[in-house]
Amino acid sequence: MSPSTKSVTGAGTLVRQAMDAVTEHIRRARLKAGDELPSEAELAQSLKVSRAVIRETFGALAALRVIDVGNGRKARVAVLDSSPLASALDHAVNTEQVTVAQVWDVRRTLERRTAVLAAQYRTDEEAAQILAHAEAMKQFRDDFGRMTKHDIALHEAIAAASHNLLFAQIVASFSPQINEAVPTAWRTRTTERQRSTILRRHLAIAQAIAARDPVAAEKAMDLHFDDSIKRLLDAGAGQLT
Amino acid sequence: MSPSTKSVTGAGTLVRQAMDAVTEHIRRARLKAGDELPSEAELAQSLKVSRAVIRETFGALAALRVIDVGNGRKARVAVLDSSPLASALDHAVNTEQVTVAQVWDVRRTLERRTAVLAAQYRTDEEAAQILAHAEAMKQFRDDFGRMTKHDIALHEAIAAASHNLLFAQIVASFSPQINEAVPTAWRTRTTERQRSTILRRHLAIAQAIAARDPVAAEKAMDLHFDDSIKRLLDAGAGQLT
Repeated sequence: MSPSTKSVTGAGTLVRQAMDAVTEHIRRARLKAGDELPSEAELAQSLKVSRAVIRETFGALAALRVIDVGNGRKARVAVLDSSPLASALDHAVNTEQVTVAQVWDVRRTLERRTAVLAAQYRTDEEAAQILAHAEAMKQFRDDFGRMTKHDIALHEAIAAASHNLLFAQIVASFSPQINEAVPTAWRTRTTERQRSTILRRHLAIAQAIAARDPVAAEKAMDLHFDDSIKRLLDAGAGQLT
Repeated sequence: MSPSTKSVTGAGTLVRQAMDAVTEHIRRARLKAGDELPSEAELAQSLKVSRAVIRETFGALAALRVIDVGNGRKARVAVLDSSPLASALDHAVNTEQVTVAQVWDVRRTLERRTAVLAAQYRTDEEAAQILAHAEAMKQFRDDFGRMTKHDIALHEAIAAASHNLLFAQIVASFSPQINEAVPTAWRTRTTERQRSTILRRHLAIAQAIAARDPVAAEKAMDLHFDDSIKRLLDAGAGQLT
């Protein structure tokens, strides 16, 4: 192992400074998503640090989804992505720093608003997609994996139809957890009657958005979360649908 | 540069797998914030990858605030932190993927809820702190830097008093941007009358929380954002207070 590589281990400050320099470059050069960054070699030279420091810097910025790094090509400025918050969320739940009920409170707060915005700003194509996911949930009510995929896709499509990428990505960051927990909850703890209610609620949200009715969309989303949080508390644990 | 180091550059998959293995270890071993992780050497051996891969893995997990790495000691499980989302937010605004008005919509949505929760769950000490920040904003109304620090601290203290760490950290992730934009906006574009209104609104939020009145707290937070968003749109740009 080269000395320069060795130095990285204990040199958080160098990496931190290089991270700041790269983000400052993005800002000053007014780079946009998809634009190329200077090469590792160029950055190492201009910042007067080793290639190993630049490599660790790129790794950290890629983990934060500030840049995209790919094999054998230059790094590029990244599109805002849900994965850093998804990682943080997964970590917080795993290590019991937040409860599933607390995550649901945050989801509900955000998704009441995305339902309103979607009803105001959705395109016709978006309205059709949202409705299609609600219909598909009904169609696959006995195939919990597929139903869950449409459940998640419906919530993400509503958030995307808010036309606010920050809402869309925060809401999307909850999806990996839902994907893990819902099929089990649905299979083991959800009665036929509860299932019908859940499916009906999702359809009501989709229809209100299609009807461009923000008040009804907010109310339908609220009812959905009322039901889900009640079942969550009844189940006493990680029931997530 | 050693071959093992070289291989990391083009080996996103190895790092990704090692990241998953570390988070899976945290989950299975039921580690909590502050607990020690295995050493780099132990992990390299058990995962059959190079030390360079583990080093990059730790760097990425540290950037995501899943682990804390420090000089010369073992990595530890980290407390949930606002910095990954703050980085993503900063990036999204810098690269014009979201507008300042869109960030404000997300803030308002979250902070209406944290005001309600704080009014319900704040301790007496938290209520006193929140009031103290509102009073300090008045006291330092002509020292924009200090006033802004108390403004930010007040919003963060309210979010913390929600006793939901996820709300607290998402709200805190907005602070670096506010810290940058507010003193300039306050100095150059805020009239004396607007300043008095802003200070009064903050005091009203703090008083409603102290009075354990969630309805008044939500309304006061809403009025604060009404004013701020109106001024933001009037200013046509990044006015952030």
